[in-house]
Amino acid sequence: MKVTAARKRKNDPEGVRSRILDATARLFQAQGYHATGMRRVMQVTGLSSGALHHHFATKDALALAVIKERVAPVVRETWVDPVRTAGSLGTTVQVVFSEIVRGIEQRKAVAGCPLNNLAMELSFSNPQLREPLRAIFQEWQTTLAARIGATHGGVPMDRAQRMEAASFVISVYSGAMNLAKTAQSALPLRAAARHLKEWLLEQGFSP
Amino acid sequence: MKVTAARKRKNDPEGVRSRILDATARLFQAQGYHATGMRRVMQVTGLSSGALHHHFATKDALALAVIKERVAPVVRETWVDPVRTAGSLGTTVQVVFSEIVRGIEQRKAVAGCPLNNLAMELSFSNPQLREPLRAIFQEWQTTLAARIGATHGGVPMDRAQRMEAASFVISVYSGAMNLAKTAQSALPLRAAARHLKEWLLEQGFSP
Repeated sequence: MKVTAARKRKNDPEGVRSRILDATARLFQAQGYHATGMRRVMQVTGLSSGALHHHFATKDALALAVIKERVAPVVRETWVDPVRTAGSLGTTVQVVFSEIVRGIEQRKAVAGCPLNNLAMELSFSNPQLREPLRAIFQEWQTTLAARIGATHGGVPMDRAQRMEAASFVISVYSGAMNLAKTAQSALPLRAAARHLKEWLLEQGFSP
Repeated sequence: MKVTAARKRKNDPEGVRSRILDATARLFQAQGYHATGMRRVMQVTGLSSGALHHHFATKDALALAVIKERVAPVVRETWVDPVRTAGSLGTTVQVVFSEIVRGIEQRKAVAGCPLNNLAMELSFSNPQLREPLRAIFQEWQTTLAARIGATHGGVPMDRAQRMEAASFVISVYSGAMNLAKTAQSALPLRAAARHLKEWLLEQGFSP
């Protein structure tokens, strides 16, 4: 048993797999899916072609794992969990935006939202990768919709209306991140946060 | 003179250049910048490497021309000119969204906004192409800001506040297009249009 455990540690297939995912997620974020070849992943991980392909037979298998095991958790941690556990939705949205703005101002660069980036590059041209990307947006939207107040100006809202309001919130964030990335500045995110918080309050969607 | 004119027509360098730009703009829109090689442009235009490189020495020279001569005019025609000549900003925004939704529903596919697509793929990794993309957003934002009402709830707004409101409008559109592309559905654009029109009216930004 001891020998097997030691060999396992030495071989450490889970560790290698995780290292591949980390490296690929970073490459996708910096330069995108199409600009990242399997050869480049081999270079930055120091793995042979055989070792890399042992874990991921194709680039799309690797991309799928990056989406599910790296991109989805980032969106959950940044947006979905704070919204799920929020006291006030308006305040939480403000806090999420502030955290993102703070990160950008520390790094002095805007690489963009990893979900947005891959979704924009792949949604039209790669239906198989579109599906798991869409699922992340869906989880985000459903969580937001569940936290949006049940009335709009005193009038009860049905689920479709709450989903629509949630879609609007995600659109504002997603688009502001587009502008921030293009301007390489956090200003569009600041503008979006301010107007979005006002909107949530004025619409009665958040206390 | 006659012979020269005839030879010019036969050679038609402007026609060839225009054909290259059309083909490349279509390829960028369908599959993106990185997935489109010069070889593919040669295939779809039927040009030799020499003929293609006579017009565009590098892929980035070609991309720059596509941005300035194909992407910018589309944004001007779709967004900037209607906003510039708008009676009511709220109504015009609604009409622009409706036109885009109609196009999507006719094609039954969402390839996305050509400006958004290239900006997302290139803004972080290619500063030289980021600049002309940023300039298109800037023109769009400036035009919107000039049409946004001068007061907000009766309080006069300065230029920075109008630019911020314009940034919010573009964010909503741009993000809704992201969601529409990922969902391959016009629904997020419909949701965005409805809430955005309400917002413009409620904020007093549009009659």
